Amino acid sequence: MIMEKNAIKRVAILTSGGDAPGMNSSIRAIVKAARWKGLEPYLVYEGYKGLVEGDIRPASDIEVDRYINQGGTFIYSARFPEFKEEKVRLKAKEQLDKKQIQALIVIGGDGSYHGAQLLHTIGIKTIGLPGTIDNDISSSDYTIGFFTALESIVSNIDRIRDTARSHHRCILVEVMGRYAGDLAVYSGIATGAELIITAENKMAIEDIVKVVDHQMNKLKKDSVIIIVTEHVYENLKEIAQKIQTETNVDTRESILGHLQRGGTPTGMERYVAAQMSTYAIELLCDGQSGLAIGLVNNKLQALPILEALAQPRPKYIELINKYAKINQEK
Amino acid sequence: MIMEKNAIKRVAILTSGGDAPGMNSSIRAIVKAARWKGLEPYLVYEGYKGLVEGDIRPASDIEVDRYINQGGTFIYSARFPEFKEEKVRLKAKEQLDKKQIQALIVIGGDGSYHGAQLLHTIGIKTIGLPGTIDNDISSSDYTIGFFTALESIVSNIDRIRDTARSHHRCILVEVMGRYAGDLAVYSGIATGAELIITAENKMAIEDIVKVVDHQMNKLKKDSVIIIVTEHVYENLKEIAQKIQTETNVDTRESILGHLQRGGTPTGMERYVAAQMSTYAIELLCDGQSGLAIGLVNNKLQALPILEALAQPRPKYIELINKYAKINQEK
Amino acid sequence: MIMEKNAIKRVAILTSGGDAPGMNSSIRAIVKAARWKGLEPYLVYEGYKGLVEGDIRPASDIEVDRYINQGGTFIYSARFPEFKEEKVRLKAKEQLDKKQIQALIVIGGDGSYHGAQLLHTIGIKTIGLPGTIDNDISSSDYTIGFFTALESIVSNIDRIRDTARSHHRCILVEVMGRYAGDLAVYSGIATGAELIITAENKMAIEDIVKVVDHQMNKLKKDSVIIIVTEHVYENLKEIAQKIQTETNVDTRESILGHLQRGGTPTGMERYVAAQMSTYAIELLCDGQSGLAIGLVNNKLQALPILEALAQPRPKYIELINKYAKINQEK
Amino acid sequence: MIMEKNAIKRVAILTSGGDAPGMNSSIRAIVKAARWKGLEPYLVYEGYKGLVEGDIRPASDIEVDRYINQGGTFIYSARFPEFKEEKVRLKAKEQLDKKQIQALIVIGGDGSYHGAQLLHTIGIKTIGLPGTIDNDISSSDYTIGFFTALESIVSNIDRIRDTARSHHRCILVEVMGRYAGDLAVYSGIATGAELIITAENKMAIEDIVKVVDHQMNKLKKDSVIIIVTEHVYENLKEIAQKIQTETNVDTRESILGHLQRGGTPTGMERYVAAQMSTYAIELLCDGQSGLAIGLVNNKLQALPILEALAQPRPKYIELINKYAKINQEK
Repeated sequence: MIMEKNAIKRVAILTSGGDAPGMNSSIRAIVKAARWKGLEPYLVYEGYKGLVEGDIRPASDIEVDRYINQGGTFIYSARFPEFKEEKVRLKAKEQLDKKQIQALIVIGGDGSYHGAQLLHTIGIKTIGLPGTIDNDISSSDYTIGFFTALESIVSNIDRIRDTARSHHRCILVEVMGRYAGDLAVYSGIATGAELIITAENKMAIEDIVKVVDHQMNKLKKDSVIIIVTEHVYENLKEIAQKIQTETNVDTRESILGHLQRGGTPTGMERYVAAQMSTYAIELLCDGQSGLAIGLVNNKLQALPILEALAQPRPKYIELINKYAKINQEK
Repeated sequence: MIMEKNAIKRVAILTSGGDAPGMNSSIRAIVKAARWKGLEPYLVYEGYKGLVEGDIRPASDIEVDRYINQGGTFIYSARFPEFKEEKVRLKAKEQLDKKQIQALIVIGGDGSYHGAQLLHTIGIKTIGLPGTIDNDISSSDYTIGFFTALESIVSNIDRIRDTARSHHRCILVEVMGRYAGDLAVYSGIATGAELIITAENKMAIEDIVKVVDHQMNKLKKDSVIIIVTEHVYENLKEIAQKIQTETNVDTRESILGHLQRGGTPTGMERYVAAQMSTYAIELLCDGQSGLAIGLVNNKLQALPILEALAQPRPKYIELINKYAKINQEK
Repeated sequence: MIMEKNAIKRVAILTSGGDAPGMNSSIRAIVKAARWKGLEPYLVYEGYKGLVEGDIRPASDIEVDRYINQGGTFIYSARFPEFKEEKVRLKAKEQLDKKQIQALIVIGGDGSYHGAQLLHTIGIKTIGLPGTIDNDISSSDYTIGFFTALESIVSNIDRIRDTARSHHRCILVEVMGRYAGDLAVYSGIATGAELIITAENKMAIEDIVKVVDHQMNKLKKDSVIIIVTEHVYENLKEIAQKIQTETNVDTRESILGHLQRGGTPTGMERYVAAQMSTYAIELLCDGQSGLAIGLVNNKLQALPILEALAQPRPKYIELINKYAKINQEK
Repeated sequence: MIMEKNAIKRVAILTSGGDAPGMNSSIRAIVKAARWKGLEPYLVYEGYKGLVEGDIRPASDIEVDRYINQGGTFIYSARFPEFKEEKVRLKAKEQLDKKQIQALIVIGGDGSYHGAQLLHTIGIKTIGLPGTIDNDISSSDYTIGFFTALESIVSNIDRIRDTARSHHRCILVEVMGRYAGDLAVYSGIATGAELIITAENKMAIEDIVKVVDHQMNKLKKDSVIIIVTEHVYENLKEIAQKIQTETNVDTRESILGHLQRGGTPTGMERYVAAQMSTYAIELLCDGQSGLAIGLVNNKLQALPILEALAQPRPKYIELINKYAKINQEK
């Protein structure tokens, strides 16, 4: 993976996949760290699509400074399945070559990593940074975006608990995560949710009903909050109605949806994003390529992208079961 | 409406209808203002239901102080249609008489006001405070709960704009309001929404499609946010899909739902709640009853409840149309 | 004040005096409303200084859209006492004439209004918008910036109350306001402060000591928060020490300072800013000039600037005294 | 350290030292986890002082549930140097014995750990949890309170940056940390501060002046933010004035102070607090005592308290120097 040192003079940045808070903080840190190391930073607009189309512009320090605490990605993201085709990727390389850019830092998820790996094999020095609110990149304990999405979820569940409690309600809250339960598990533990349901522990509706009935009707708890990862159930409204019919407890559902994606990145998000970003520049200056950066056991780490992609996902089932017992009244 | 002065020694407080942030601040202020005037404050738990069942307890200053900045209503709210029956209301009066409570302050919406009016006619001195996030009490320019719900909505739409912009999306955001457009109008103007749709201006789907197409495809705007009041359309998901099909713009819907109800009341909410609450105590000490308090033209005002209920609702249609023009690119 | 209609084709915007959250929202709304009315909007950078130096640039819609929810003023503000000299002002007019800009909207405080009035007298059509966190512009019940500063203060006093309570402390909190007590009064009422001290009711230290002693030592209240407007006392630390010495209550001071100026403008701030801004454009298109816009009794109003400057300030002393009684334990 | 299993039936909780957000979340989690394991949880009011005086009460689930997202510590904290005396500690043991409480969980800093260790040696089964905003407990990478304090600081520095930028100012921001630079380092990196100054890198004023002069006067940066740990300089106001005199850059200081202590604990705070708290109960049920819990390399760990207290503090000097280069314009 080692190439000749200081071979690079220009580095480009792109964001890909779902946007995540902290992407802008990361872009800023890469730009600033690049300058510090004497590199010229460039921004690729609209992800891999923009790369292929050549929408690549020199970065402005004053602009990236302004975005340090802004949600989303100001250089945009885009779906671009065409990047799987080799000729499309060669076009991307051509665009970078034309601008004498030797290196590319990609902030995104698994799919984005694949793209970075493919560019690595054709001579672009690439580094992948984990950017997704879902925390579903196994080579990093935490991804850029997860910290803020967690806080957006938690502050909204706090609001939901206020109203659930005022009316003795059960509220089912659907959170994002694609197929990863991290957001559900962290937010559920943080808010004392009576149930956390992810792909790991999909429960039969009758079993949910039993829990709600026991907590509300037998033990007279003043509210029940159930956190559910998206895609686990097809229709949360139906489940809410079923619970209400069976238990006579006023039950509602709330799908948090897109608000989980945006928002001012938290301080911890920006700290982690800055650290990963600076490390990416340091690795490039050290002649490295084809690596994915992670925060593992609270330390920065870089793995070959293919190895990073092959890491196993953590299991949360034990934690989920434990906190179901802790958070339900006895 | 004038009764003998200082006839009251004890005053009870209840919250009714949908919970709203600031109800707790209001309870606190009533308790503190009651003590200031030498009255003993009592709390009725679970709204009119608790009143009839006699769940009425002396207020604790240390407890209400803790709730000054908490969402929801810590004395709970409840639906209680039975209160329409006279014998049920007489039972309520009996409960108050038994505890030598002469006055009752009710925080809630129109339905709660009706209850207060009925109690007034059978000899309980009552005052109504406007408590609902929907701002749909015509006798007050602003209701307790509206300020905070507006901020919850705006901060979440800001998050949604971040992600919409990152992906060049159109996102339809459904906000609460029952049949009142206030939350939609205020949040739409505050966030620069390209369209605000309330019961006053239900648009045909084709017309929405035209706007999205023009903004995104013709003028290349980077995102479109459409705020819609609940109950205007039956199925927002279908509309989003229709827009996407017709315009090829990635379109999503987001139903903010119950998170709009809770949360730390804002400073302005708590300021207004305190002012209204203190005024309620002052009116009671002045021998008044059967009044609804409002903030009208930035001044506290009290109207006979029946008159308050008969006030006309404001119209927003002009404002909605103006800001549609202002916020859409030309 | 009426001039020929539609005489203007271009309108410039400048911000002046202390920055305030909502200034950016206002700039955006002016730009969008100008386009709606067929005017070309320009931005003046660095206030009156930039005006005289000719730092005037066409506004970009995409840029102002991004700033709708950003604190500060992205076109900067600056002190510029030289504007009092006539020849300097003539230079400003020259710069506007050169760019064929006939109108100027100034967002700022009293000093900024004076500048707008002087430009009005030499033929520039000017409108003043009240922009300051201090709420000290008498011709408007609320100023752009006040709403957000209030929330920044309240959320920080909530934090301070948490720690005061945990340790049975008295904490003196200094808030901004220049010589106006509005921020102190609103935040004090919102947070249940035991004392609010502004220029209207500067208290002798011995009298503060008595209150703290009574609340904490006699009545065993768990904390006391005292809100003080800046400039009332010279040295808050000394007062805190004096209280501690005399009462044996652990007492600290906290000067909120510059954090009160910035931050994401609240939804209400942005709503009011948009309304005032749109009204400014409407007035200009109607041929008006030399006016200051205000929100008075919850309605938009425009007064001749000199008249606006002559409005009397509200008195808060009664409110302050009332809430001292309400918020102190008996 | 191993004692007989299941010897305990009752466990008490106390908070000690400076309050920290997340203490209430931790109390809640301990209470809930205790019930889960069949233990009866008790609350000690006012730290070690209350322990000695016997202010120990059974915990209420409904009460602790309400405090899950509240700042401060609702069971209060207190200074109590008398606990160094053996006879005072024996009195504490007596109070616990009287109530048949065999175990005590202490949430606090180093001083609180010492107390827990001493109780351990006289037969109380004790566990220490790291609770302080300063993050200065070396046996844990993160302490309960640090996450939230970081966010309070960062959101306030964001506000300060808004106003600094609007007026081309330099603002010195003093943050807490006692003698630990963690809050300064994390918040400085998160906000892109041009300088971070802690006890590790106290700079001569002339050197600060040089940086400000270079950034603002030579390179025309629009603002400079300097984060300083408390206790490093005696008088920040003087330094600000010196900078202003020497550079002619408008310079201010802002001492964040007590607002850093309170506030709603973040989701991450509450997640970590819950995990540590549950672990404490599990250790006690496993017969352990005299241990301090930490989060080390993202994993829960328990060390003998004396060993925990002897851990070395991390050094930040390299990070500080690196980010000074990254965040200053070249």
